[in-house]
Amino acid sequence: MRRIILKARPGATPLVGDFAIEEAPTPDPGANQLLVQTLFMSIDPYVRLSLDEMTIGDVPGLPLGQSPIGRAVARVVKSNHADFTPGDLIEGRSAWAEYAVVNPAVKPTKLDLGALPLSYAVGALGMPGQTAYAGMIDIGHVQPGETVVISAAAGAVGSMAGQIGKILGARVVGLAGGAVKCAAVEALGFDLCLDYKAPDFDKRLAAALPQGFQVYFENVGGDLSLKVIAYAAYGARMPLCGLIANYGQASETGPDRLPHFLRTAFVKGIGIKAFHGESVGGAHALAANRTWIEQGKLKPAESIIDGFERIPEAFEGTFRGNSHIGKVVVRIAA
Amino acid sequence: MRRIILKARPGATPLVGDFAIEEAPTPDPGANQLLVQTLFMSIDPYVRLSLDEMTIGDVPGLPLGQSPIGRAVARVVKSNHADFTPGDLIEGRSAWAEYAVVNPAVKPTKLDLGALPLSYAVGALGMPGQTAYAGMIDIGHVQPGETVVISAAAGAVGSMAGQIGKILGARVVGLAGGAVKCAAVEALGFDLCLDYKAPDFDKRLAAALPQGFQVYFENVGGDLSLKVIAYAAYGARMPLCGLIANYGQASETGPDRLPHFLRTAFVKGIGIKAFHGESVGGAHALAANRTWIEQGKLKPAESIIDGFERIPEAFEGTFRGNSHIGKVVVRIAA
Repeated sequence: MRRIILKARPGATPLVGDFAIEEAPTPDPGANQLLVQTLFMSIDPYVRLSLDEMTIGDVPGLPLGQSPIGRAVARVVKSNHADFTPGDLIEGRSAWAEYAVVNPAVKPTKLDLGALPLSYAVGALGMPGQTAYAGMIDIGHVQPGETVVISAAAGAVGSMAGQIGKILGARVVGLAGGAVKCAAVEALGFDLCLDYKAPDFDKRLAAALPQGFQVYFENVGGDLSLKVIAYAAYGARMPLCGLIANYGQASETGPDRLPHFLRTAFVKGIGIKAFHGESVGGAHALAANRTWIEQGKLKPAESIIDGFERIPEAFEGTFRGNSHIGKVVVRIAA
Repeated sequence: MRRIILKARPGATPLVGDFAIEEAPTPDPGANQLLVQTLFMSIDPYVRLSLDEMTIGDVPGLPLGQSPIGRAVARVVKSNHADFTPGDLIEGRSAWAEYAVVNPAVKPTKLDLGALPLSYAVGALGMPGQTAYAGMIDIGHVQPGETVVISAAAGAVGSMAGQIGKILGARVVGLAGGAVKCAAVEALGFDLCLDYKAPDFDKRLAAALPQGFQVYFENVGGDLSLKVIAYAAYGARMPLCGLIANYGQASETGPDRLPHFLRTAFVKGIGIKAFHGESVGGAHALAANRTWIEQGKLKPAESIIDGFERIPEAFEGTFRGNSHIGKVVVRIAA
């Protein structure tokens, strides 16, 4: 089988060359473990956080030479655990490899998606969907008539969050890079999508927010964040669900933007809540998303890339503002 | 009468020389206005925010040559308003001047403090007291047994917040500059106060927070903030009530600390809520503080400086980490 390993510590933007593909023996599951075949590998920016040496919580950074751990849809091939049978479809944390050993202690979810696409399990009906729901509802408390700004609006989370905002009756302004992405975002039902790369972006942002905003669903960080929060209505909420611009150990040469950021937050009484969709958006989020999908109110956007060997390229692309819309998934064996 | 005017735009630290004292005619109250004599002038770091040219909300920066507006305890000398009578004692927004015209539209509070010191009206029973209460209870939701870190622990707000933390049954760790201040803070009942200027501060901070903290009552901003948030327990709350280190248009050269700040907030699921004590901590906060004071559970710390002309010095001192403990008040005519 093939697996992808971390060859070098990435810079601010992880590159294809930071990884290597190698042949390896199919691993052997130990007691209570499963051997699974990867069907879809989810491409998530947060994986970048594990690629530094820095320990996060109790989790040390990934050693060089080992496989990054992402989220995957997989089929159980061999089971040493009473709760799983060969043929079961699961979603959960798994290595960037064609076959992997999964420990049921990490709580893989057994899938039962009916007629819905399996890939939704890592998208609209997985962590990104939970994150979008939790950020808009459990954390952001979006109310009808409010104005919500969503960064990375064409992304897996942003594209869902905006649709949920429309279901809730809010006015939804998306931010995305490039006219093509913006058109796709507006096609999903956002009231408006602004291209933050456009030369007149600052002017268009001001025009789009004459009364400011109540909620800023933050997926990006960096300079865009500072531009947006200038339009916070007093007491605005800022669910902080991701920071693509800040995942890398980016160069932290000046100017120091922290004073400006905190000063703005202070003056405007902003509430910022960092959260992780998986822990906040529980079963209730998945159930709601599924119902909305089945009712046709929520249309998951996906970009499916074929071929195991393209995982590093897809991952790099996530940080480069590639042209993908919605959830990026690499199809390996499905 | 004398008044203090803004002579020059302050740098990061406002200096005595940024102000001038001048003689001026006692102003004449217009229709519905009051003429008041200033008894106590409250010295509050937030006034720094009004001294730049930048407009905050609808409020333009103070023009040069005019008097800063702070909070004062004053006696009504002449009233053109039916609700006020000469001799009434009030607390509210008022100019840095011995006499000032007050418009009842800015809602001065008529004082009825019984036997309690009048100066409490700008301290424990005024905005700082509301801020301390709101930050700990309405915003911070401090629970018994939780660990709370309080920066600027010797300040007007911090010294109250820590005592409220103890009343609530929390473990309270204060941070203050210098051994003298720390001793004073511990004397107020904090479990511990760490001197952030001490060479072994980093080590002592780590030792003081073996399980991290649940709430960081943030009064300061800047590097101290970054050091503290490294110890956030997952999901920690950070009521953001002031940013002494960030009030000035500080030099923003040097490393960009925003990515580090946001990344830490993200990884640790921190909730940051900027708030203004006055709007959050309403009458319920003042009533609770008064009861606790009358029960002897809360001991307001005050530093009273005599002499109108010392307002600029007292204001500068607030930013220089002077040796004052608790609420700094200039006594003018009481």
